[in-house]
Amino acid sequence: MSTETIRAGILGATGYTGGILAAILQQHPQVEVKSYGSRSYVGKRYDKEFRNLFGLPGAERPCEEENPAALAEEVDVLFLATPQGMAAGLVTDALLNKVKVIDLSADFRFDDLSVYEKWYGLKAADVKINAEAVYGLPELYRDKIRTARLVANPGCYTTCSILTAYPLVKERLIDPHTIIVDALSGVSGAGRGAKVDNLFCEVNESAKPYGIATHRHTPEIEEHLSGAAGEPVVISFTPHLVPMNRGILATVYATLKGQDSDAVRAAYEKYYGDEPFVRLLENDMNADTKWVEGSNFIDIAYTIDPRTNRIVMNAALDNLMKGAASQAVQNMNLMFGFEESSGLNFIPVFP
Amino acid sequence: MSTETIRAGILGATGYTGGILAAILQQHPQVEVKSYGSRSYVGKRYDKEFRNLFGLPGAERPCEEENPAALAEEVDVLFLATPQGMAAGLVTDALLNKVKVIDLSADFRFDDLSVYEKWYGLKAADVKINAEAVYGLPELYRDKIRTARLVANPGCYTTCSILTAYPLVKERLIDPHTIIVDALSGVSGAGRGAKVDNLFCEVNESAKPYGIATHRHTPEIEEHLSGAAGEPVVISFTPHLVPMNRGILATVYATLKGQDSDAVRAAYEKYYGDEPFVRLLENDMNADTKWVEGSNFIDIAYTIDPRTNRIVMNAALDNLMKGAASQAVQNMNLMFGFEESSGLNFIPVFP
Amino acid sequence: MSTETIRAGILGATGYTGGILAAILQQHPQVEVKSYGSRSYVGKRYDKEFRNLFGLPGAERPCEEENPAALAEEVDVLFLATPQGMAAGLVTDALLNKVKVIDLSADFRFDDLSVYEKWYGLKAADVKINAEAVYGLPELYRDKIRTARLVANPGCYTTCSILTAYPLVKERLIDPHTIIVDALSGVSGAGRGAKVDNLFCEVNESAKPYGIATHRHTPEIEEHLSGAAGEPVVISFTPHLVPMNRGILATVYATLKGQDSDAVRAAYEKYYGDEPFVRLLENDMNADTKWVEGSNFIDIAYTIDPRTNRIVMNAALDNLMKGAASQAVQNMNLMFGFEESSGLNFIPVFP
Amino acid sequence: MSTETIRAGILGATGYTGGILAAILQQHPQVEVKSYGSRSYVGKRYDKEFRNLFGLPGAERPCEEENPAALAEEVDVLFLATPQGMAAGLVTDALLNKVKVIDLSADFRFDDLSVYEKWYGLKAADVKINAEAVYGLPELYRDKIRTARLVANPGCYTTCSILTAYPLVKERLIDPHTIIVDALSGVSGAGRGAKVDNLFCEVNESAKPYGIATHRHTPEIEEHLSGAAGEPVVISFTPHLVPMNRGILATVYATLKGQDSDAVRAAYEKYYGDEPFVRLLENDMNADTKWVEGSNFIDIAYTIDPRTNRIVMNAALDNLMKGAASQAVQNMNLMFGFEESSGLNFIPVFP
Repeated sequence: MSTETIRAGILGATGYTGGILAAILQQHPQVEVKSYGSRSYVGKRYDKEFRNLFGLPGAERPCEEENPAALAEEVDVLFLATPQGMAAGLVTDALLNKVKVIDLSADFRFDDLSVYEKWYGLKAADVKINAEAVYGLPELYRDKIRTARLVANPGCYTTCSILTAYPLVKERLIDPHTIIVDALSGVSGAGRGAKVDNLFCEVNESAKPYGIATHRHTPEIEEHLSGAAGEPVVISFTPHLVPMNRGILATVYATLKGQDSDAVRAAYEKYYGDEPFVRLLENDMNADTKWVEGSNFIDIAYTIDPRTNRIVMNAALDNLMKGAASQAVQNMNLMFGFEESSGLNFIPVFP
Repeated sequence: MSTETIRAGILGATGYTGGILAAILQQHPQVEVKSYGSRSYVGKRYDKEFRNLFGLPGAERPCEEENPAALAEEVDVLFLATPQGMAAGLVTDALLNKVKVIDLSADFRFDDLSVYEKWYGLKAADVKINAEAVYGLPELYRDKIRTARLVANPGCYTTCSILTAYPLVKERLIDPHTIIVDALSGVSGAGRGAKVDNLFCEVNESAKPYGIATHRHTPEIEEHLSGAAGEPVVISFTPHLVPMNRGILATVYATLKGQDSDAVRAAYEKYYGDEPFVRLLENDMNADTKWVEGSNFIDIAYTIDPRTNRIVMNAALDNLMKGAASQAVQNMNLMFGFEESSGLNFIPVFP
Repeated sequence: MSTETIRAGILGATGYTGGILAAILQQHPQVEVKSYGSRSYVGKRYDKEFRNLFGLPGAERPCEEENPAALAEEVDVLFLATPQGMAAGLVTDALLNKVKVIDLSADFRFDDLSVYEKWYGLKAADVKINAEAVYGLPELYRDKIRTARLVANPGCYTTCSILTAYPLVKERLIDPHTIIVDALSGVSGAGRGAKVDNLFCEVNESAKPYGIATHRHTPEIEEHLSGAAGEPVVISFTPHLVPMNRGILATVYATLKGQDSDAVRAAYEKYYGDEPFVRLLENDMNADTKWVEGSNFIDIAYTIDPRTNRIVMNAALDNLMKGAASQAVQNMNLMFGFEESSGLNFIPVFP
Repeated sequence: MSTETIRAGILGATGYTGGILAAILQQHPQVEVKSYGSRSYVGKRYDKEFRNLFGLPGAERPCEEENPAALAEEVDVLFLATPQGMAAGLVTDALLNKVKVIDLSADFRFDDLSVYEKWYGLKAADVKINAEAVYGLPELYRDKIRTARLVANPGCYTTCSILTAYPLVKERLIDPHTIIVDALSGVSGAGRGAKVDNLFCEVNESAKPYGIATHRHTPEIEEHLSGAAGEPVVISFTPHLVPMNRGILATVYATLKGQDSDAVRAAYEKYYGDEPFVRLLENDMNADTKWVEGSNFIDIAYTIDPRTNRIVMNAALDNLMKGAASQAVQNMNLMFGFEESSGLNFIPVFP
């Protein structure tokens, strides 16, 4: 295990994900944050925008213009918590020769860039750079992450959905063509932009689906489940917004190929039995966003329904943590040879 | 239209549903509440338990022991907002000879009493009385309700799920064997009992499924969709609890038999085009609990997904209103020959 | 009582107050809304912005440019739910010759326009027009409101604070120079503008004071308590934002001139004993925003503390109802000779 | 600094405070929890009641009967998170000879036991044991805490109120006889007991005062401010419940003896300038519970109002952290010679 200390820069530090990244890195024993990049708050003290950090060492630093090339001279790792489409234009071979990059946008998440262009309507990244990017889901791709120069950090819904269904698809326990993912998200998933739709009074007492059949996380889930299935998999994915700050809850339906609960549990144990951040719940428990909030955990559970011959998997994670910032730090730990859980042993907040 | 004034009694008046019933009837132009029945608050002023009614005429009346036989002498209609299993023991032919009864529990909701006994684990009602009960969903069974002595008021999840799927099943537009209902509920659905699970601090920031594959509303939905299909239909139903006071949001998945959006809309128009309390949303809208809260409306929308050949229906209602109390009053209006919407023209509360 | 039907126009119909006004007037038996004025949503269907009104008669009308002079030809009453400073420029003698105007902003609330200019930093209204405006607090100024052409509808904090303290100041039961008003507000008080500060994730789990010693409602409270005292009264006023949609809770401290609880109650009874929308709570009750939400009620309570010789008054109202829209309609009812409570008998929403 | 590892027992481990204590100690580098005591959950796995700890080392331990005498043989420190009145009967000289005790109830908080008996209506502790107890507010009584066998951990409202007003009272900058503390609390302050009043649906959209002029934290605040003033101080204290999980916000009013902002700031700097967990906010900032949630911080701010010659102090802390559990651990660190902030460097949770 490396015990060195590295320097980090955050682009997009004044969004919710950037703010959590800053807080996690503030506590990380082997990282020093050297720059808070922002487009909206340049020149303002970071700890007056994110007052949870008020008075903490280094957090009084003002937000800076986002200049990855210049930053690359000063830091060892660059986190891009920037809007979709920005990273594609920023990451070059020259940059990657100087710093390791962890991109939290979707720009490098797809093997097939035409899928990106179709679902995002944005110009895709350079093919060669994209080919080098590793999808940052440590539970599935740990070894590749260790040696990557560029990691594409997964989305929140996707981390939750892929980890939940992957073992059962891979082990041929469910019919992948019957997969339906019905998911709930807290409001922070919509970001910190000033929009009427995300005002307290609009969201409170509201539960609603959105982006039905068109949400951009759909093809990301499909790519990895297709990989598990060994054939193209198309799913239904319906996200919903519910009135809480954080959390993803995914309820995943599929038709069973058998009804052997032991085989299901064995499959989960095979893939996650030794994982530090995946908690397989017991048979009498369901996933609940409450019990993972503020941590890097994903909790997974399942119920077999003999009446319909379907399995109902369910899983919960914190969208800003395992669904974004803490997973990015988990990837960083792997890329720099640190203890994988270094700086990530947060106990979920309750109550 | 009858313009008479009737007298009403409420059993279970100190639960959430009973409290809403009391508030609706307080404003109803043709009803006077003569008794608030309670098991826990006997002798206490009603308007000090439900302080929204504080100072309103008649609401200072103390809660009374629940004695349906005695009440039958004083009132014209009896609302039973009592726990599961109680109504089955209370409703007799003698009682029905004196008062019309609207039962908000599940005791008279099933044609097949063995289904009730299996899913509820309680002793079922008398077969003959049960056979007389009419399922109180006015949009489907209006004529029978008009002449009923006993109405079984539907559940909250069930009202939302049945009304959403019924036209498409009935018109053979979807495969009924592929129906999956994934639903969200506000916390008031769990009742006003003092339980740790429903404390503010436990529920806030929590989203979780419960009763997976075993929730009691499942067979109720199945009975009516089977009726529409003309064959037994078995569905997957997964309820979730989300942190809001009120609201049911049902997201209903099914495989299409065609992909004709016009036919789907035509089917909904055929069944609900003239319904005062069903709002068919436009193609660019989804259902949202926010927009129905406090009203007797159900909002229904759908999206066709050509990639998966599935339709994703979604609907919202207020669990305590169209899902319970205001639907009960709608049934009462029908049973007494009142204007069906009398006392029910509540505009949803926003923000 | 007049039984005629009038036509109304709303300027600023797409803010929260405007939306509530639209909903209340939609149900009012003697009013037809002829125009929804807006600056941001011109041309868009009103009932697609305020989807609680979706499908209701007339609500499909598109939002219109705000043109009070033209509107004056079509309507009998004009509600101005416009930003501070706009009404001052819009209301003229010519306009008032054609329509009655109820202004929900602060522009006509002050006798002394220099106070307005000092606290609001805006150009004040014409002196003559301002002199004609009647402060729209029916409990105190009912007779003047009946004959007014222009009513200045009070603010939310101010309605709550003035009504709570007025009788005790007027009856010389408390020392007016010791008055401290500590108040809580739901988030809707901040309006529907798209601001980061009012996003769900910023406000949830947050309780904080703001505008300490500088909030604009301070001089409005002082003007009316000075009137009651017969001498200038200066108060401390501290508003706080708490995570709920609606509600004002005012806790008002003052040093007693005696400790006679009966005299205090008698004073409240003298001023409000016959008021339809003021509920004097009993000695064992405190005010709670929950119990007035969605209604035109204000609930008032008090506790005498012999240890400190202070009285702690407390009161609750719905900031968008008695604190804004429903109070405006109460004023309209008075101005047009309608039953004062017409269209206003809303029972508070619970739960 | 001691680097030893100690063993801890928690009585009342299944309340909210006990649960937070368990989570903090789980992460503390020098503590091992040996026993979770409970009255309601004996025999049940601790990590299935507090599922945030599910799967963490040692947390699978079942809850045990509360037996302090037996526990004293196994542990070095005992945390009593038990109901008022229990600790008084449990703590003896024999017990204190074996373990250090940190009591989170009010039983040992008062110098004058008659005050305890009057406000709590419970039998007070033994006089001699009580005389030995040190009030556990490190910022004021650090040296005494270091050598104490028994620490009385302060209440949540009291920690916030005392720390806010103490420097200004002590330095004679305000008139102590004019102090009014108006405070807001999140719902977790009411504990984890199953009560209707604390159900989600009762508390959501509710803001209300309670315990006006009678709340038990009043004399605790008075004792320490009297100490600062050198004369008896009587205050007004009004707590309010607002719909959030955690947080205390105290707004404290007092009449200034001068209006010198610099002197006020100097006083705060004198007492807290070097304190690791007190953050003095800048002049343009107010306290907000949001920015301290999940941490051991208290944020303090103030505004001088020349119009009224009053100062409005305001402060925020997390009631379960600096207001209870993390302050208890801060006391433990002092009692055992550990680094005072060991295991307590939590960054506030945002969003």
